[in-house]
Amino acid sequence: MITKIDHLGIAVASLDEAVPVWENLLGLKCERIEEVPSQKVRTAFFDVGGVHIELLEPTSEDSPIAKSIAARGEGVHHLAFATDDVAEQLNQAKSAGARLINETPVAGAGGKLVAFMHPKSLRGVLTEFCSDSKHS
Amino acid sequence: MITKIDHLGIAVASLDEAVPVWENLLGLKCERIEEVPSQKVRTAFFDVGGVHIELLEPTSEDSPIAKSIAARGEGVHHLAFATDDVAEQLNQAKSAGARLINETPVAGAGGKLVAFMHPKSLRGVLTEFCSDSKHS
Repeated sequence: MITKIDHLGIAVASLDEAVPVWENLLGLKCERIEEVPSQKVRTAFFDVGGVHIELLEPTSEDSPIAKSIAARGEGVHHLAFATDDVAEQLNQAKSAGARLINETPVAGAGGKLVAFMHPKSLRGVLTEFCSDSKHS
Repeated sequence: MITKIDHLGIAVASLDEAVPVWENLLGLKCERIEEVPSQKVRTAFFDVGGVHIELLEPTSEDSPIAKSIAARGEGVHHLAFATDDVAEQLNQAKSAGARLINETPVAGAGGKLVAFMHPKSLRGVLTEFCSDSKHS
């Protein structure tokens, strides 16, 4: 069962340029910046009332985020739902006709299980399921 | 001050087609559907752990949502932050160099005050400020 929106992933060309803009225009404070080599991104985290905004900067031209920026420009990249059971959530989506990117959960950042649905499944919204903190 | 993410607005061509997909693939339940004539949209609301997802269907070809779908396809349209003071939030953003769509707050759905920043301000993310429920 989906328990909350875990985070919103936003593609940016440069964290050095984007983070000060998000901080100054919105009055938010970047919590931390992390490199995730497996995804070829550097990520800046903002906590907004318990939901994270993750600014995603590609660290390589073959990063999925680099491809997304090349195709569609900067902007919202994916929407991640926290769920008490990622595998069960995938099964439910698949039974209802979803096209999955990950047929089974994979290890994500922070020891969470994660899995992506293809954006065609939800009409243009790339969706991630991830284990909520109580069940990770 | 921004207190939380209030909602995420998602452009869809048809609520009749999209709502069952969001319900069946994700196991979410649509709370209600409302028409907002001033915005020329019909909106389906989902509550996900206190943050709303709003699916937005254009009711006219000159609806901003119709134009967005024509230009960029279906998908995430805007990100709305709840704030304790919409006017002050606008002032902060403007002082920091933001380009605003609404220079002052306007009346939105449910008696809230709302205002939009131009998407160029946050690198492709169309952002709304709205009064949080304690301050609306």
